[in-house]
Amino acid sequence: MRNQSLPDLPRRILMGPGPSDVHPRVLAALARPTIGHLDPEFVALMDDIKALLRYAFRTENALTIPVSAPGSAGMETCFVNLIEPGERVIVCANGVFGGRMKENVERCGAQAIMVQDEWGKAVDPAKVSAALKGNANVKALAFVHAETSTGVQSDAGALCKLARAAGVLTIVDTVTSLGGIPVETDAWGADAVYSGTQKCLSCPPGLSPVTFSTQAVDAIKKRKTKVQSWFLDLSLVMNYWTGQGGTRTYHHTAPVNALYGLHEALLMLREEGLEASWKRHGEMHAALVAGFEAMGLKMKVEPALRLPQLNAVEVPAGVDEAAVRRQLLASFNLEVGAGLGAWAGKVWRVGLMGQSASPVHVLTCLAAFESALQAGGAKINAGKAQAAARSRLGLA
Amino acid sequence: MRNQSLPDLPRRILMGPGPSDVHPRVLAALARPTIGHLDPEFVALMDDIKALLRYAFRTENALTIPVSAPGSAGMETCFVNLIEPGERVIVCANGVFGGRMKENVERCGAQAIMVQDEWGKAVDPAKVSAALKGNANVKALAFVHAETSTGVQSDAGALCKLARAAGVLTIVDTVTSLGGIPVETDAWGADAVYSGTQKCLSCPPGLSPVTFSTQAVDAIKKRKTKVQSWFLDLSLVMNYWTGQGGTRTYHHTAPVNALYGLHEALLMLREEGLEASWKRHGEMHAALVAGFEAMGLKMKVEPALRLPQLNAVEVPAGVDEAAVRRQLLASFNLEVGAGLGAWAGKVWRVGLMGQSASPVHVLTCLAAFESALQAGGAKINAGKAQAAARSRLGLA
Repeated sequence: MRNQSLPDLPRRILMGPGPSDVHPRVLAALARPTIGHLDPEFVALMDDIKALLRYAFRTENALTIPVSAPGSAGMETCFVNLIEPGERVIVCANGVFGGRMKENVERCGAQAIMVQDEWGKAVDPAKVSAALKGNANVKALAFVHAETSTGVQSDAGALCKLARAAGVLTIVDTVTSLGGIPVETDAWGADAVYSGTQKCLSCPPGLSPVTFSTQAVDAIKKRKTKVQSWFLDLSLVMNYWTGQGGTRTYHHTAPVNALYGLHEALLMLREEGLEASWKRHGEMHAALVAGFEAMGLKMKVEPALRLPQLNAVEVPAGVDEAAVRRQLLASFNLEVGAGLGAWAGKVWRVGLMGQSASPVHVLTCLAAFESALQAGGAKINAGKAQAAARSRLGLA
Repeated sequence: MRNQSLPDLPRRILMGPGPSDVHPRVLAALARPTIGHLDPEFVALMDDIKALLRYAFRTENALTIPVSAPGSAGMETCFVNLIEPGERVIVCANGVFGGRMKENVERCGAQAIMVQDEWGKAVDPAKVSAALKGNANVKALAFVHAETSTGVQSDAGALCKLARAAGVLTIVDTVTSLGGIPVETDAWGADAVYSGTQKCLSCPPGLSPVTFSTQAVDAIKKRKTKVQSWFLDLSLVMNYWTGQGGTRTYHHTAPVNALYGLHEALLMLREEGLEASWKRHGEMHAALVAGFEAMGLKMKVEPALRLPQLNAVEVPAGVDEAAVRRQLLASFNLEVGAGLGAWAGKVWRVGLMGQSASPVHVLTCLAAFESALQAGGAKINAGKAQAAARSRLGLA
């Protein structure tokens, strides 16, 4: 153990699959003196956070709160509250996180009916429609809006519409999408939506915003069994976050300082405006792709399905992908993500999330990749990327 | 919603049941730039945190980590990993948190055999011994070392000894004890111990340190069923926190900045020394009690059972306890806790935890109570408390 105060950590440039770069305003908010989780001033702040989350999720849902744990716990919150033993859930899998949903369903004692799509493809609404028609007594449809393992977006609106027409609840993973591309909770008619703070909201990891429709809340109220998790039981959590008549019942101790940070990050999102944030993510993506392609690299995902905030870049033949990442970190303090699962060793995952979706990030990333690839002996078109990206950014 | 950046929150003096006052060093650590949860520099920090936690828990247990969520999730981590459906757990209840343990056992599909003691009394080892003898096939004994709802400590060493002699695992709640009074994980022979960060460690809430003995890890490895919580499944979490051969497998995204804070708080504990911290908590407690008694107030718990870090003070007859707390907050920015459950309206819970266990806190608290009680029309011996407390503090 190093016998010293917090070591002199490097200042990284975070362009992986999250966390993204955190703005100094948010870091400063984290360091505000702690107050009590039942303090009237804190309760007022909780109300602000709920309102800001409703803005981010585009919803009027009363039950819109941050779960006091990372995105995986947000996922689990949706499943353990909505799904009871013996029930059936259609789970769409087109990457790592669909598989995790299946685990969640099975650990609820329920049955997962899988709709499989290839890595790099979107969830196919035709397959979902067939699954809804071909299976009786389905409680919910679960899918990932923005697959962090591949950088693919699925048509959440179409999938929610199919589910609602079939009288089936939806559980939607927007961990990587919230703030980066449109998440239209109410317009989609989504029932349970969860996200994370460390992606396009540019907060540190540790909280999971969730929102539940009236239908979802009704389903929770009609449960025959207790929620298997005491910590994530929304019938208890609700009393703290949305207590009636101004009284809040203690459930667990809320992570006060982390919530300061989330409040500030959400405020920054509202200041910029959701639409402006979506536009910025799209523009940075276009510039980054132009730069990579000018360098001779290939994007793994077809253009129509690409998430602007998570770019899967193919590792050229003969290049040691891990060595390139080590070089990016050592020489440029730049973090990008490795491939996961089926794509391990085959792609880099380059994030343009929240504060990391800026022209400086795009140009720095391209410069660092060009250098690291050349150091690794890759054959690339050197000297082309910067101009290609700048052109897309409208810079001379 | 208030249309502004993080509002100008009051600077509170936190002397409730937690959170306690957070040192500026810890607040500053929280605001360090975020780095990736798989960054080699962060992995090194994780190792430091594990070593510091082993120091705090007085253990050599390899599986000693902070759960990425508040203390309630630490409790749940212990139960869902050790207990399988159909098993039997002896649960000791002498306050709120024993009841919460019962909820956890039942939500695991297991049976809770309750050992009840009155609020304000310690867990009775004779009753536990009888329960261990009178029930076959018991998997675990669960109890709270330091009951936050009453301010009572139980004899954890004696209870663990009984359990081990009976071949039964122990699950021990040290949320309020860790850092404030001796927690001797290895000397007790405790198997699963959980705590929180916002009590005597004086971190913001949001993390739950846990430690598991070899026997507990063996029990997890021998499970016949999957852990019902994916997020809290230690067989998966372990791969991230204690990965073999230097490789860490991604499970969930760790709350990076919260862990910076925990690291700094644990370092401060080690700098002071555990024994010195225990001594300080005891001395501040003695001074606070001397002051309250000089004022004519009564402590609710008998001296031998009192937790120095959590003081249950009886509300005098005819005094509106909530009005006094409002006055303390409004005039002195001082937060103390209300009574819970059976003691609601009957006691104040005054914390002397971590950074809040200081002479300034003791004297400020007594001054504020004297003022608020007089404002509320209580008959007290005014003008005596300060000298009584200073005398115990060795101050003129």
